[in-house]
Amino acid sequence: MSDEAASTVPDVLAGLSGIRSDVEDWYRDLHSHPELGFGERRTSSLLAEHLRGWGFSVTGGIGGTGVVGVLANGDGHVVLLRAELDALPIREQTGLAYASRVTGSEGGTQAAMHACGHDVHMACLLGAARLLAQTPDVWQGTLVVLFQPSEENGAGARAMVADGLAELIPRPDVALAQHVFHAPASYVGIRPGLFLAAADTLRVVLHGRGAHGSQPEAAVDPVVLAAMVVLRLQTIVAREIAAADRAVVTVGSIRAGEGANIIPDAAELLINVWTFDEDVRTRVIEAIGRMVRAECQASRAPREPEIERLSSFPLTVNDSEVTERVAAAFGWHFGDAAGTADSLTPSDDFSDIPRALGAPSTFWVIGGTDPDAYAAAERAGTVAQDIPVNHSPRFAPVLQPTLDTGVRALVTAALAWLAPVTRSS
Amino acid sequence: MSDEAASTVPDVLAGLSGIRSDVEDWYRDLHSHPELGFGERRTSSLLAEHLRGWGFSVTGGIGGTGVVGVLANGDGHVVLLRAELDALPIREQTGLAYASRVTGSEGGTQAAMHACGHDVHMACLLGAARLLAQTPDVWQGTLVVLFQPSEENGAGARAMVADGLAELIPRPDVALAQHVFHAPASYVGIRPGLFLAAADTLRVVLHGRGAHGSQPEAAVDPVVLAAMVVLRLQTIVAREIAAADRAVVTVGSIRAGEGANIIPDAAELLINVWTFDEDVRTRVIEAIGRMVRAECQASRAPREPEIERLSSFPLTVNDSEVTERVAAAFGWHFGDAAGTADSLTPSDDFSDIPRALGAPSTFWVIGGTDPDAYAAAERAGTVAQDIPVNHSPRFAPVLQPTLDTGVRALVTAALAWLAPVTRSS
Amino acid sequence: MSDEAASTVPDVLAGLSGIRSDVEDWYRDLHSHPELGFGERRTSSLLAEHLRGWGFSVTGGIGGTGVVGVLANGDGHVVLLRAELDALPIREQTGLAYASRVTGSEGGTQAAMHACGHDVHMACLLGAARLLAQTPDVWQGTLVVLFQPSEENGAGARAMVADGLAELIPRPDVALAQHVFHAPASYVGIRPGLFLAAADTLRVVLHGRGAHGSQPEAAVDPVVLAAMVVLRLQTIVAREIAAADRAVVTVGSIRAGEGANIIPDAAELLINVWTFDEDVRTRVIEAIGRMVRAECQASRAPREPEIERLSSFPLTVNDSEVTERVAAAFGWHFGDAAGTADSLTPSDDFSDIPRALGAPSTFWVIGGTDPDAYAAAERAGTVAQDIPVNHSPRFAPVLQPTLDTGVRALVTAALAWLAPVTRSS
Amino acid sequence: MSDEAASTVPDVLAGLSGIRSDVEDWYRDLHSHPELGFGERRTSSLLAEHLRGWGFSVTGGIGGTGVVGVLANGDGHVVLLRAELDALPIREQTGLAYASRVTGSEGGTQAAMHACGHDVHMACLLGAARLLAQTPDVWQGTLVVLFQPSEENGAGARAMVADGLAELIPRPDVALAQHVFHAPASYVGIRPGLFLAAADTLRVVLHGRGAHGSQPEAAVDPVVLAAMVVLRLQTIVAREIAAADRAVVTVGSIRAGEGANIIPDAAELLINVWTFDEDVRTRVIEAIGRMVRAECQASRAPREPEIERLSSFPLTVNDSEVTERVAAAFGWHFGDAAGTADSLTPSDDFSDIPRALGAPSTFWVIGGTDPDAYAAAERAGTVAQDIPVNHSPRFAPVLQPTLDTGVRALVTAALAWLAPVTRSS
Repeated sequence: MSDEAASTVPDVLAGLSGIRSDVEDWYRDLHSHPELGFGERRTSSLLAEHLRGWGFSVTGGIGGTGVVGVLANGDGHVVLLRAELDALPIREQTGLAYASRVTGSEGGTQAAMHACGHDVHMACLLGAARLLAQTPDVWQGTLVVLFQPSEENGAGARAMVADGLAELIPRPDVALAQHVFHAPASYVGIRPGLFLAAADTLRVVLHGRGAHGSQPEAAVDPVVLAAMVVLRLQTIVAREIAAADRAVVTVGSIRAGEGANIIPDAAELLINVWTFDEDVRTRVIEAIGRMVRAECQASRAPREPEIERLSSFPLTVNDSEVTERVAAAFGWHFGDAAGTADSLTPSDDFSDIPRALGAPSTFWVIGGTDPDAYAAAERAGTVAQDIPVNHSPRFAPVLQPTLDTGVRALVTAALAWLAPVTRSS
Repeated sequence: MSDEAASTVPDVLAGLSGIRSDVEDWYRDLHSHPELGFGERRTSSLLAEHLRGWGFSVTGGIGGTGVVGVLANGDGHVVLLRAELDALPIREQTGLAYASRVTGSEGGTQAAMHACGHDVHMACLLGAARLLAQTPDVWQGTLVVLFQPSEENGAGARAMVADGLAELIPRPDVALAQHVFHAPASYVGIRPGLFLAAADTLRVVLHGRGAHGSQPEAAVDPVVLAAMVVLRLQTIVAREIAAADRAVVTVGSIRAGEGANIIPDAAELLINVWTFDEDVRTRVIEAIGRMVRAECQASRAPREPEIERLSSFPLTVNDSEVTERVAAAFGWHFGDAAGTADSLTPSDDFSDIPRALGAPSTFWVIGGTDPDAYAAAERAGTVAQDIPVNHSPRFAPVLQPTLDTGVRALVTAALAWLAPVTRSS
Repeated sequence: MSDEAASTVPDVLAGLSGIRSDVEDWYRDLHSHPELGFGERRTSSLLAEHLRGWGFSVTGGIGGTGVVGVLANGDGHVVLLRAELDALPIREQTGLAYASRVTGSEGGTQAAMHACGHDVHMACLLGAARLLAQTPDVWQGTLVVLFQPSEENGAGARAMVADGLAELIPRPDVALAQHVFHAPASYVGIRPGLFLAAADTLRVVLHGRGAHGSQPEAAVDPVVLAAMVVLRLQTIVAREIAAADRAVVTVGSIRAGEGANIIPDAAELLINVWTFDEDVRTRVIEAIGRMVRAECQASRAPREPEIERLSSFPLTVNDSEVTERVAAAFGWHFGDAAGTADSLTPSDDFSDIPRALGAPSTFWVIGGTDPDAYAAAERAGTVAQDIPVNHSPRFAPVLQPTLDTGVRALVTAALAWLAPVTRSS
Repeated sequence: MSDEAASTVPDVLAGLSGIRSDVEDWYRDLHSHPELGFGERRTSSLLAEHLRGWGFSVTGGIGGTGVVGVLANGDGHVVLLRAELDALPIREQTGLAYASRVTGSEGGTQAAMHACGHDVHMACLLGAARLLAQTPDVWQGTLVVLFQPSEENGAGARAMVADGLAELIPRPDVALAQHVFHAPASYVGIRPGLFLAAADTLRVVLHGRGAHGSQPEAAVDPVVLAAMVVLRLQTIVAREIAAADRAVVTVGSIRAGEGANIIPDAAELLINVWTFDEDVRTRVIEAIGRMVRAECQASRAPREPEIERLSSFPLTVNDSEVTERVAAAFGWHFGDAAGTADSLTPSDDFSDIPRALGAPSTFWVIGGTDPDAYAAAERAGTVAQDIPVNHSPRFAPVLQPTLDTGVRALVTAALAWLAPVTRSS
């Protein structure tokens, strides 16, 4: 980043104090009204309305509920900034005044909660869009603001791509996204190369044959079969993947039978796989299939098992050049609060968008935890117990400096490409 | 049985044609109004009313909802006949006109069904009580008619004993009970010695430590632990019990986790054990405890497992002398339709009553399946698929000759002791 | 057995005191010179010589080293008495003066020992043959004395049958055999119907792919595969065979690898199966094959497993009528020392002979342990530790009354058919 | 490395062509006469003799058969170069003219083979010592040449340290070692930081209780117990170690039982563990102990298991500064043939020496495979099958350029410290 480019950041962020309470209001409103994946109608309407009000050319209903706003501001680079719309089917337990109003009902509607911070991402992206929209004279190029549906099951980004996203927006020169997590608020972390694991979720149904529990000889016991499968699966990481090739295979759920004295007909396993390399990923998925099918044969199962891929997240690999430019901008702007992040096992489907658009991309993380609470927990050695993480019903980022940091990071990174062309690097 | 004793049976059964439609009505009414264990209020009231009407001295509310009727008819033996009150939490699928009206509701009341034939037992016992009550001059002694609650979880007989049953009735010289099952109707089977297995139900909770699925190193995975336990348990029957000592250990249910990407905190197993010998039973139960605890240690479980005995059914061992006498009476009365039954793995808590009262006892089975349907299925080799067994939502004994057979078996067996004392053997 | 038949037994056994020391000498000589299966040349020559000396028509070399002697003594039944020639590859540890002289050598010849009592069987059969041969006037019919090779691997009886045994001897009306075991000497036990289990020995080679131990991803680990197979096999008895159908599946040996840091190419399992029913036997053997093959697939084994049946012993089922006749004779002759034996898991290939010859048969056991030592161990509760059983390197039947009992049992049983025809039952 | 330092390398290596055939002769002689760990008497005598002849001050018999030669050549740094003496108990299958003459005999002496390349290391170190000894005027300082016994079980380096090595030599400023492996000859690879895994070998004896195979209820089956342990151990890598923390746990050998029909008394496992972090190492070793003990409890084992650490290799972590200096020298001298090596799972106990002496150290690898053969195998995709690796009975480094490369690497690295002090960096 040239000095000239950097010098535009303060000009844009000068407006932050003026919109801070708006950003906080947007955040609280979004947090109170979470919507599950592909059902984010209220959320997307609200976002589209704001963007239109600020002069963006808006297209909604992409891939279901996805929204894109384009702000063309002269020649220059095209920068895409992305956030996610969807919440999780979790009943909130934060006790916050602005807690989710979607608390579900017995046998009726499902609870929902923004327990993964997508509300932070949306509020910050609105804030960045607002600031850039109101300072057209200090930057140049095209800003594309994208809100995707249903990130949590890894399907929303692909849905927008499949719905013709490439035809609806100018081709980005760079695509950027961020994620809040349980580091101290004000922290911003990024790393070149491999950042987030690929993740795949499988549902496996093992068919046995039920019988009265006292007559196992008349049955094919799916509980014993499931136990064999679970132990077999341990040998993938232990024996089939090199020690240097990271992989995790977790059976997160196992379910079979209702009562003690009946051998059930089937057992269901939910399996999650995290990998950091496409070849390893392929081998793990294939090994699961091979093992499941062979164990069913060993048990003389009357039917083939069902193996269904419920979701599939790509590897998140940050482009080296793009990341270097963003990291330099962060270092200049955030100083010591910016650092090099570790690669992480959580996954995100963001990469499906730049891959489809042919754009290089990078992805960074920001902290959301009260810094004093974090430091106290660290001193007490109780971070794991005391600091709620993403997907916890108690996940509750502090409003500030979390929201300010998210807005500043987006603006800073975007301006690394949107500085006036005559002066840019 | 002397010829004289036998000769009283026709005198009592002469009234059967007169009450046959009453027995069928009672059966259909009971079948339509099933009540779950310890909740059999309508059922017990109805039975008590009938017995009182026929001159029995009735005590209700024993062990919750148990009912006893005593009919003293001069000197002689005291004979106890037992039936069960409770139904199962199953939604009936027979399509019968008199099917259960307790169909349950989503999120509300539970469905119930007499899917184990207790309605047959009650109707037949009412019929036998009615016939004996109306022929006091052809028999002598005391008839005790007992209806126990909650047989299905093995708790009802013990509850009546604990509630002072021994103080409420004269001490029986013999205790008798019968069970309908999926043999052709008109069949009556009995055997001396070991008849039904002991059964024990255990609930085991294995405590692990939850974590995000991508971080197994921060967790103690209860799914893997549960799989190890399930496989360990297979070695009890395979390695710790002699081939000649029959035992079955079934894990009927395994449950852990809600989603694919979270390692849960705990896993629950429901285990059923059937044994045919008290020593074997003790060893199997101890082995389960030993294995569960040790596997938890192998997994470095943060808490001891919970092992709870949910129910416990005694061995049913028929007294040799009593059984010989009943078998002789059956042979005389039923001819070829009476046979020697195999010992069976289902269990029954009947034995808890005679054991507590110090009375010898026997237990027999009667068929409930349409003989033509059974023969057809046997020819087609489809008995296992076509003939619904006890606990099936399609279990539907044919009214006749099932009910007639049950009434006749009870009367015939009871009269083996209730013949006029001056003439009895 | 008629009184007349019984009355011939004392006439034959009157000679026992005269040959007792011969029988003991034969026993000690045979015990000192054990020979392994199909290598019993000295033993069979010696036996043939004795039989010829007593007037038997002898054929040797049947099925390798088998010997048959036939003594025709007028019209009447043909009775076959059988004993076994072979010893075990065990180094004797009894310390007896007449202990095995075949002690083996390091890297050279194998040790051998009559640790299963075949020497007792041979000495007693010689004794019985001698007594019957010297009393031709008190019995009538044909006596066939058969010594088979290689019983220990279940191959010798079949070898004699395959070598044309049926053409070499008159068709027997009955075939009889006995076995010594660790009950008190003087005991004689027999039972009708199922007596000894069928036994099958399998050798399974599981092929993996070797690699340096630090590179499991380049290997197919046969140690892990073997462990999965061993646990899978437990589920045959635990889940696939009814509790009432006795079966035992034992992996007696598992071997893979030489060093800690190399993943070997293969693993070998030796598996033994005992069953009491042909259908169960078939199902168990098939289940082993199914499970082994499927587990190899689950491990992506590069080659099919090898499954070889090393030996196969038939069920020993005693003919009801024959057994009844022998049991009656034993009761008359031995009084309280004769009893009803339990069915046993050891196996014997005797049945292959009568089955091939179309003769009904029975098989009984005699005790071989010093009665005082047995009683003392029983009082101390140390029978299992103190009383050496068959196949122990310390197995050492007491000479008397073991040998007398064995001779008397054979003579008594044979005479149940060989009594003079004019008087026989 | 300064240009001046580098300029001394050619002066020393100028003598290489003159000693090349000597180095090859030494290699062939050492290869033909392998000696197992702590028995390397001929080898160490021969090496000591050479060193003495070239003016080294030699001490032998350190830690058994270890040898150290010291050549003081004025002020300057002290450089230690190390090689290993011992061979492996492998019967050579190379068919080479100079193959091992220690071919073992049936039941007698053990075969031996330099299958790990220690003969290459010794020959090259002799060559480097010879070249430096004959050019005392172009370098300055002290050269320490160390030959250690018994590297293969990780005990030899510790044995020399325990025997007072530190008192016998001047304290080195740097310690250097190299290893030949199956890369193309002429390749030289090095890396800073973690290079070789720590390795630990455990022997575990699981005690059960033997019995006849048909009576598992009288036994505690160690085969089933061993299978449970093997599967449990898979969960260490799969569940207890983070994906980012490399670890390998291999059960290289499992042994139990002799025959199919006897349940044995015990089972033996040989386990190897490779780790790349001391904390992970500790956790893996502890987990093995925990699991083994708990599984024994689950099986009601009559005795505690035996867990014995047979060998233990340290982590090999290359000092950053030392490695940088050596890598620079290699780059200057070898050009493109020098590269950055991957970290490897094999282990070496070299680090025990510099750690005990307080010296920084580095360790590098050289290729030993014929480059044409390697390239052909690479093209055919058959490297894994065609190129014999260390510990293979067919491991056969090509003499050249392997030996030249090894000599040149040692001289080049040593001179990075031994250049004339007045000119060195």
